[in-house]
Amino acid sequence: MDPQEHEADHGTGSPAAPHMTPEELRLWGRRFLDWVAGYHEQIESYPVLSQVRPGEVADGLPQSPPAEPEGFDAVLDDLERVIVPGLTHWQSPGFFAFFPTPATGPAILGDLLSSGLGVQGMLWASSPACTELESRVLDWLVELCGLPQRFRSDGSGGGVIQDSASSSALCALVAARERALTSAAGATIADLVVYTSQHAHSSIYKSARIAGFGADRVRYVDSDPTYAMSPEALAAAAVADRAAGLVPCAVVGTVGTTSSLAFDPVARLAAIARSEGMWTHVDGALAGAAAVCPEFRFVNRGLAAVDSYCFNPHKWLLTNLDCTAMWVADREALTGALSVTPEYLRNPHSEKGTVIDYRDWQVPLGRRFRSLKLWLVLRWYGAEGLQTHIRSGVAWAQQFAGWVREHPDFSLAAPAPLNLVCFRHRGGDEVNRRILDAVNEEGRFYITHTVLDGQYTLRLSVGTVATRAHHVEAAWDAITAAAANL
Amino acid sequence: MDPQEHEADHGTGSPAAPHMTPEELRLWGRRFLDWVAGYHEQIESYPVLSQVRPGEVADGLPQSPPAEPEGFDAVLDDLERVIVPGLTHWQSPGFFAFFPTPATGPAILGDLLSSGLGVQGMLWASSPACTELESRVLDWLVELCGLPQRFRSDGSGGGVIQDSASSSALCALVAARERALTSAAGATIADLVVYTSQHAHSSIYKSARIAGFGADRVRYVDSDPTYAMSPEALAAAAVADRAAGLVPCAVVGTVGTTSSLAFDPVARLAAIARSEGMWTHVDGALAGAAAVCPEFRFVNRGLAAVDSYCFNPHKWLLTNLDCTAMWVADREALTGALSVTPEYLRNPHSEKGTVIDYRDWQVPLGRRFRSLKLWLVLRWYGAEGLQTHIRSGVAWAQQFAGWVREHPDFSLAAPAPLNLVCFRHRGGDEVNRRILDAVNEEGRFYITHTVLDGQYTLRLSVGTVATRAHHVEAAWDAITAAAANL
Repeated sequence: MDPQEHEADHGTGSPAAPHMTPEELRLWGRRFLDWVAGYHEQIESYPVLSQVRPGEVADGLPQSPPAEPEGFDAVLDDLERVIVPGLTHWQSPGFFAFFPTPATGPAILGDLLSSGLGVQGMLWASSPACTELESRVLDWLVELCGLPQRFRSDGSGGGVIQDSASSSALCALVAARERALTSAAGATIADLVVYTSQHAHSSIYKSARIAGFGADRVRYVDSDPTYAMSPEALAAAAVADRAAGLVPCAVVGTVGTTSSLAFDPVARLAAIARSEGMWTHVDGALAGAAAVCPEFRFVNRGLAAVDSYCFNPHKWLLTNLDCTAMWVADREALTGALSVTPEYLRNPHSEKGTVIDYRDWQVPLGRRFRSLKLWLVLRWYGAEGLQTHIRSGVAWAQQFAGWVREHPDFSLAAPAPLNLVCFRHRGGDEVNRRILDAVNEEGRFYITHTVLDGQYTLRLSVGTVATRAHHVEAAWDAITAAAANL
Repeated sequence: MDPQEHEADHGTGSPAAPHMTPEELRLWGRRFLDWVAGYHEQIESYPVLSQVRPGEVADGLPQSPPAEPEGFDAVLDDLERVIVPGLTHWQSPGFFAFFPTPATGPAILGDLLSSGLGVQGMLWASSPACTELESRVLDWLVELCGLPQRFRSDGSGGGVIQDSASSSALCALVAARERALTSAAGATIADLVVYTSQHAHSSIYKSARIAGFGADRVRYVDSDPTYAMSPEALAAAAVADRAAGLVPCAVVGTVGTTSSLAFDPVARLAAIARSEGMWTHVDGALAGAAAVCPEFRFVNRGLAAVDSYCFNPHKWLLTNLDCTAMWVADREALTGALSVTPEYLRNPHSEKGTVIDYRDWQVPLGRRFRSLKLWLVLRWYGAEGLQTHIRSGVAWAQQFAGWVREHPDFSLAAPAPLNLVCFRHRGGDEVNRRILDAVNEEGRFYITHTVLDGQYTLRLSVGTVATRAHHVEAAWDAITAAAANL
């Protein structure tokens, strides 16, 4: 660059880019909001599971980026023409697949605020409200869900919003690893063992592998007939590993497994972990939200003795992706493992240690203001509204489970304590596969499957915001009709 | 639960929660949009660096969560009363701290679409458009930035949106680790060494530690007087490590360091890495965006030989947090290290291997539809608009660097090739510290510092959307006035 050229700009300056003005944001914002609201209004007109073939969406998009600014009318047209047909509609009332991922109005507005404010909460100082609102709403969740007091931020613990239960498990395992390496003299990472169950989410194994644990150092402890981890088997595995010169490092339990909503006996696992010097992390991704209802607090059993815990408000607590609530009992164990401070992040408040810097609680440095959406959800619904949502999901799933029990050709494949029902037709794997395909191809519903005891098993997960009792009933009709038509 | 009770619900169903209706979303959405637009209109009325004391925001919030639904008028009041005073305003035109984090209209609208659609793109099948739009816009960026063709998704490489450069480095290092463990017979993770520079971002060390590399297995290779990594020192370190029985695993270079925007000699580092069988990852977090302008393509030098690369559209490319663009030359090396497939995620398209499942490219399983905001940014600005933004940031920073050069008491502390100027007063560390404090306390501007060659150094980073030439000029006036008043 020629300095003379810049000098010539002095006063007038180089031209600014064609940024969208606040007034344009108001105008276009209304158009886009209207489009989003309309999408929800007409969501039942789309097949739940996208029917495009691979490459079809890409074929509808230009090969090259636009050279010049484009009008946003064209974008809205392309949304309808190219994007919508390529969506699997997670917000459809007929979406009974995987797990619910809510996109509620208050959460959408919370995200809008976060995007609009555009602050970055890596440090307390980089936007104090981003840190303090987050700590406060996670303390609120401790109260709302009846979680252990030791998770509160006014003691030695505290909560943090992670992007996912996967990342929460990763952070917990890194903290566990560092604690084990510090306390077990001479041990290396190759000596450390992580225990979980075959029914734990795949992210547990993945997180352990990312954290450097060997593939042969993740033990799948045996389960009982309800798919819950066996404490006896855990104790035996730890003893055997100690005898082999290895170091039991962490146990990861699950309250409400992804496959079948099985509940590991957390209190007993944590007691074994404590006696072996292990870290206990518990993943309550889906089911943890049920604890907003006092009658479902069984999901919290044993949490008073664990080191870390998480559940996903972005699954069943009406907050859109991404919002995982994670708590630790000893925040220094977490931050000690994840804190690295270069000079350019030093600031008086952090140096004094009087504030929380959430960058030390997570993998990334940067962070969005994600507590806004949780704050808006908690205020819009109140405890009452959240409870009503959980109770309706449980009631409708239990109703469905009742129909399965009463039908001569279908049976439950696992206990159905909350909003997930695992079931199968007595005709065997191929018949169940054909029922699944027939229901999903028809378009009004989307259900997925798992394998339990080696048998192909259908799953119906209730909790999408738009779902009502009659959708669950219609899904059952579609399933039985598909079975009858085989 | 009593099954009779559910049976009684049959037909009518349990009550649904008080969800926000699409019509309510339209009405509240306008209020919130209006609030966001107004925030941007009046942003210069706030002190850039928040002036609250620790705990002040929390004190303005109730101790307990609401039991019943609350009206959103109260939320809008609390935003003004509690949240805004606790913000450090990253979107202020006087924000010259750290690095820019844009919140542009098109990106805000893209996030709104993502939140509103509420789809989860873990698998191609779980919303094909989420995957295909992402691959396409990352191919667009390859073209737009003149990146190596081997990063395109129509060959053996491909791009993915990560939440951060930190997570990109972590994924790259995990892939590097697995490749090294596969190819170096008998090696364990304790034998593997990662090379980077003291001037690399702290997330490189943090990612290496998260991935299980020992603290004593991260080597800070010496730099030259411009703070660029020395290839000779890298080669020597690798030779010494090999001689000691260790295995060089990965080198992480930076194009545009956080401290001073130094450029590592990527081509030479990659050549050494290749001869040693190491993975080369390059972090272009801030400066990578400059490549949209042909005259700044020096930031891409050497990338044709690296294994992975990332830069952050959420820093200087007008896309709001979080949006890191990461590319790999060999996508199977990445997915081979990060793929774990439980039964409940199996589906015909994934099994055939004909589609991309982005869950295998990242730490978490779940993922938002983040390509929408990048798509909208690229369409709103076009290549031309993006270039104008980059050019104005460079021009204004160069103008500022010129004033520093000409001033008798100030001098540049590092080369200033783009939009970051490192400089200091000749009075020494304490004087510079006092200048920084005086400027930041006054409220119109926020600048931060680093340490170069052991000396306290002021940093001025240009690129915020609202910044114009006169703000940079006023910042210089404030800095020189603060120096004169000491």
